[in-house]
Amino acid sequence: MVTDTFLNHIEELRNKFNRQLNNFPLDSEPKYIYDPIRYIMAGKGKRLRPIIVNLIGTAYKANSEDLLNAGLAVELLHNFTLVHDDIMDQDSIRHGKATVHTKWDESTAILAGDGIYAIAQILITKVSVNPLKAVHAFNKATLYVCEGQAYDKEFEHNTKVVFDQYLKMIKKKTGWLIGFCAELGGILGNQPDEIINELRSYGLNLGIAFQIQDDIFEIFGNPKSMGKSLGSDLIAGKQTILTVLARQNNASNWQKMWDSVNQKEIDEALIELRNYFETTGILEEAKLIAQNYTEAAQKNLNIIPKDNRAHLEQLTEYVWKRKK
Amino acid sequence: MVTDTFLNHIEELRNKFNRQLNNFPLDSEPKYIYDPIRYIMAGKGKRLRPIIVNLIGTAYKANSEDLLNAGLAVELLHNFTLVHDDIMDQDSIRHGKATVHTKWDESTAILAGDGIYAIAQILITKVSVNPLKAVHAFNKATLYVCEGQAYDKEFEHNTKVVFDQYLKMIKKKTGWLIGFCAELGGILGNQPDEIINELRSYGLNLGIAFQIQDDIFEIFGNPKSMGKSLGSDLIAGKQTILTVLARQNNASNWQKMWDSVNQKEIDEALIELRNYFETTGILEEAKLIAQNYTEAAQKNLNIIPKDNRAHLEQLTEYVWKRKK
Repeated sequence: MVTDTFLNHIEELRNKFNRQLNNFPLDSEPKYIYDPIRYIMAGKGKRLRPIIVNLIGTAYKANSEDLLNAGLAVELLHNFTLVHDDIMDQDSIRHGKATVHTKWDESTAILAGDGIYAIAQILITKVSVNPLKAVHAFNKATLYVCEGQAYDKEFEHNTKVVFDQYLKMIKKKTGWLIGFCAELGGILGNQPDEIINELRSYGLNLGIAFQIQDDIFEIFGNPKSMGKSLGSDLIAGKQTILTVLARQNNASNWQKMWDSVNQKEIDEALIELRNYFETTGILEEAKLIAQNYTEAAQKNLNIIPKDNRAHLEQLTEYVWKRKK
Repeated sequence: MVTDTFLNHIEELRNKFNRQLNNFPLDSEPKYIYDPIRYIMAGKGKRLRPIIVNLIGTAYKANSEDLLNAGLAVELLHNFTLVHDDIMDQDSIRHGKATVHTKWDESTAILAGDGIYAIAQILITKVSVNPLKAVHAFNKATLYVCEGQAYDKEFEHNTKVVFDQYLKMIKKKTGWLIGFCAELGGILGNQPDEIINELRSYGLNLGIAFQIQDDIFEIFGNPKSMGKSLGSDLIAGKQTILTVLARQNNASNWQKMWDSVNQKEIDEALIELRNYFETTGILEEAKLIAQNYTEAAQKNLNIIPKDNRAHLEQLTEYVWKRKK
């Protein structure tokens, strides 16, 4: 059960990371790079990734300064990928604010993303326990995230993509970074490899469930609380859990549906799509898959001593029950 | 004096790095990211940066496997910055080949650049001597290179930029990475900080001279051997040693010259610009500044024991005498 005490705890953690990001020491010049970097750091976000590093690291009594630096590093790594992905996907809104390439331009966004990644690297190098192992895993995760984004772009408008390919894509694009965050908590807590591997599996399973939920919110969410317009992934021809399952379930029906909604305004299209995914049982199927991954994640947590895993069990449930 | 033995030695080093880059172990999938990364790795380049790491590291008896990994890492870091800079500057030719965003598109180039940077990071983490120090310096250098590129963009079409600002820009954009390469040779040779700092100064001075020469080649070079079209920096409104000195020397004359050549075809414009920079003594002044930095670099080399610095003295002279 997600308790109020736990909710207060992660709210405090989130506030702490937000304060650190808002007051991050940066030069004022050149403004061309540091103005957008400050803008990115002041953005809203769930701060899920640093929270995972913190909760797992704390379960293994990691150094709190390390957890702060590592938490900021993973959040900035995540932000670097978002800024570049937003250019590639031509997304104009992120967390309710104009994306960097929209507010400035693409060159500014490319460079600000690169700069944020370099800052993230400098932060992760600073950890006092197993720094080399942390840095190596950090960069391996980054490369996998890039591979995931590559699949995402490769699969655009490709109606042959099946569930296994979709899964490979989201595992790399979203799963690996969250998997790395969990792993990092274990690395900073100086745990042996067999524990670190299980922690990574926890994050991978949680991350896969998280992405499937995100795909669902993209169609069924509340645009205000999402901080972005709905349906943009579908318009961009992205593969999502719903479209992949719909095609697998009945390719010709789905193609007809898709051709029909493509002619319509987005609000009307969303109503018809929601209706389609609900009546065909595809929404339920997608939710069930996410639930299975969430349950697998909960099982992975058994590697953590019982007395220390309550927060992580609640976090997993909290992610599962989120509305955005 | 640059001997044939030395020229053969650096040609062998260049071939070794080229072979390593051409046969670099990469997954075949996703093609969206690995095809352009392979294309970048097969590109021609002077390989100046890995050669510097190698020659300095060898002077301090560094491990040869470390010098290979570190050399590849700095060359890939350099390539990452080129791929992203080419997008920002809309350059279509690099080393005689189409740039990545021209051959594919901007999204592909952004992601391939990110991936190459992650691979560079993984390589630098592998060195066996002072790996954390190497990684930290690597990322500090990357951030400075980003800052240098930010000044470069900020200064575009800004006719108020003076020599000191130009110097700050090229010091970060070009100097720091070459400075880092020299520093890295010392780090891998397990040298104390006072030596490492002097080695970095060597690379900084060499890098500043190198960039001033590049600015000159951009107007006075041979387009075939440059592997790119001349004058593109000027057309893009970039600050170069020649334009900054010309403005400082006689702002109104230079403005008239600039307004006049701006109306003309590039070939004719280049002839007039060459004539202007020669007759006003600006070309000589620029060469003299580059020479002073080259001489300062030669002096920095005195930190290396006499018996071990012959190759580096020849490299410095070789860079100074290059024609492209």
